Order: sequence, then C-alpha cells, then structure tokens
Amino acid sequence: MPHITLNSSEPGIRGLLLFRPETAQPLSELTEVLLRGPGTLTRGERELIAAYVSGLNDCRYCTGSHSACAAAQLPGGMALVQQVRADPGGAPVPAKLRALLRIAAAVQRSGLAVTAEDVAGARAEGATDLEIHDTVLIAALFCMVNRYVDGLGTVAPDDPARYAAGAQRLITQGYLPPARPADIS
Amino acid sequence: MPHITLNSSEPGIRGLLLFRPETAQPLSELTEVLLRGPGTLTRGERELIAAYVSGLNDCRYCTGSHSACAAAQLPGGMALVQQVRADPGGAPVPAKLRALLRIAAAVQRSGLAVTAEDVAGARAEGATDLEIHDTVLIAALFCMVNRYVDGLGTVAPDDPARYAAGAQRLITQGYLPPARPADIS
Repeated sequence: MPHITLNSSEPGIRGLLLFRPETAQPLSELTEVLLRGPGTLTRGERELIAAYVSGLNDCRYCTGSHSACAAAQLPGGMALVQQVRADPGGAPVPAKLRALLRIAAAVQRSGLAVTAEDVAGARAEGATDLEIHDTVLIAALFCMVNRYVDGLGTVAPDDPARYAAGAQRLITQGYLPPARPADIS
Repeated sequence: MPHITLNSSEPGIRGLLLFRPETAQPLSELTEVLLRGPGTLTRGERELIAAYVSGLNDCRYCTGSHSACAAAQLPGGMALVQQVRADPGGAPVPAKLRALLRIAAAVQRSGLAVTAEDVAGARAEGATDLEIHDTVLIAALFCMVNRYVDGLGTVAPDDPARYAAGAQRLITQGYLPPARPADIS
C-alpha cells in the first residue's frame, strides 16, 4: 500500500503522476526528451540503460516497465535485456553500448564514481559527448524516478503481461501526459 | 575539468543546462515547481532539504549552492544549515521538518529505505500527504542532479561568495532558464 493516499489505484509512477500534475508535466517531458527525443542512441538502447539502472536500484516497477520497453525495441528482445541485467560486461551488445552501460553503473553508485577512464573507454568505442551526456543523465534520471516510486511505497504489478501492455502504450503514445481538455478545445 | 567539452565555462549544473537546452527546460521547470512553487513548506525549508541531500551525496557544487539558498531564506542562516547538515536530529528545527529530513535521508540511500514508521513519524508531527510527497521527490530530484553534476565532472568554485551571489540570483529570478529571444519578441 502506498505511504500516502493517492487519487487513483494506478501502480508505480502512474499513480504519482496523477496525484501531482504540476510535477508530472516537467518530469514526463524530461523522460520523453531523453528516452525518445532525437538522438544517435536508439530508443531501445536508451530504454536498456533505464532498465539496467532500475534493476541496480532494485525498483521492481521501473525495471519491469523499462525492460519491457527495451525488449520490444531491441532485436534481442527480453532475452538480451535479461543478459545485460545479469552480466553487462559479457552480454552481446555493441562495444560502445557496453562502455556506456559501465558509465551508467558508476552513476548509479555516485556521480563521483564515474572516472576519466570510464569516459575515455566510451569515447574509444565511438561514443560522442552528447551520447556520454545523455547516458549520465538517463542513469541519474532513473536514480530519481526509482527513489520516487519506491520512496512513496507505490504498488508494482506481478504479471509481466501488464508491463508488456504498458510498454506498447509508451512506445505508441510516448511519456507525455494526455492533453488536458482545455488544450484540445 | 569536465568529462565532456561544454560550450561555456559556467560551473556545476549551469554549464550542463547551457550544453543541452532540450533537457534543461523540463529539469528547470521541475526544480522551480518543487523548490519555489505554491506549497506549505517554506522555500527555505525546501532548499534545506536540497542542501542536506546534496551533502549526503558529497556533491560540492549543489551543497554550496543550495546551502546558500537555504541560508538566505531561513531565520537561522548558514549556522542553522550547517547544524542540520552535521546533526539533523539535534538541530533546532521544527519537529515536522526534522521528521521530513529523516525521510529525505532514507530516500538518499534508496527509495526502499523509507519505512512506514518514517512516514507515520512525519504525519504525527503534522506533515500532510503533499508535504511527504514533495519531500520524497525533492530528495530524489537531488539524487539525480548531484549525479548529473558530478557524473560529468563539472567544476565547483571554492569561494563561498560565488554561491551566495548565485543564491541571490536564484531567489530573485528562480530556476527557469531566461526566455529565448523568440519568446520575448
């Protein structure tokens, strides 16, 4: 049961976004830009970073949701997502993505844990400054979102089908909240 | 030296906001709503939560910046901010704020570290659901921002006067980026 009384029975962050629309709007916009906006990392790769960091933070809801989003947008599907979460250094992903996942893991521990060697390693595999920037900010974003979701004790469904259905909705509609009635008059 | 080549010499998050305006806009809006928007926690109290969490994350730039913002907006000034950072349980702050700082410290460790007892303790001191929500999200926000600032190796000034001057600017102008020329035509 959530720590506070929400105004819906929606699980995970969905219930929090409905509870506080003033913070939901910019939080959703930030997520949309980072995970789906124009960029040279694919949407599947960006969702994989989100799923990986959420797993490191033991956030069941976000891990389920972003693993499903990554699986639906990566050729390797859920098997690859699970390989990356279990053994990011050994999973069959491109060397650049592997180096970026290493940076993301450091960010999850602490910003101060990212070393010049981590960054040089990613750059040696072809990562650009913008890709390194976005990897750090995606990892940091999920260190916020995971804490928001679990710090308020929200509910996480057990059924993987719920996450797969949610992923399809996110992939087709994105992260922005639906337009308010006043916006579509 | 920052891990990536920025397009300015601005320190801390200021250089990152200038580098990536697409993420700067929603990140700044989220910060503005949480730290300065309508609410029953004072702006000084909210800045104190930000400074406290940034200190726990050892983020020198954010601790300096938000300690200065809190000090300028709390009757106890910088002495109180330093007391809270050193000994939040013993510092002379209202019991409700002390209980909220306890929740913020749990969030800094992990969302899963927040207990029902922590939340009940805050509620017993008069905290509302919205105040508990915002405390969790402010603490989580700074777990993101601290990682963003340090994960990219940004520069933090040493001189306390720089932070005090920055705080005056934030207190008078807020966190939103200046309007772009096209917006003020």
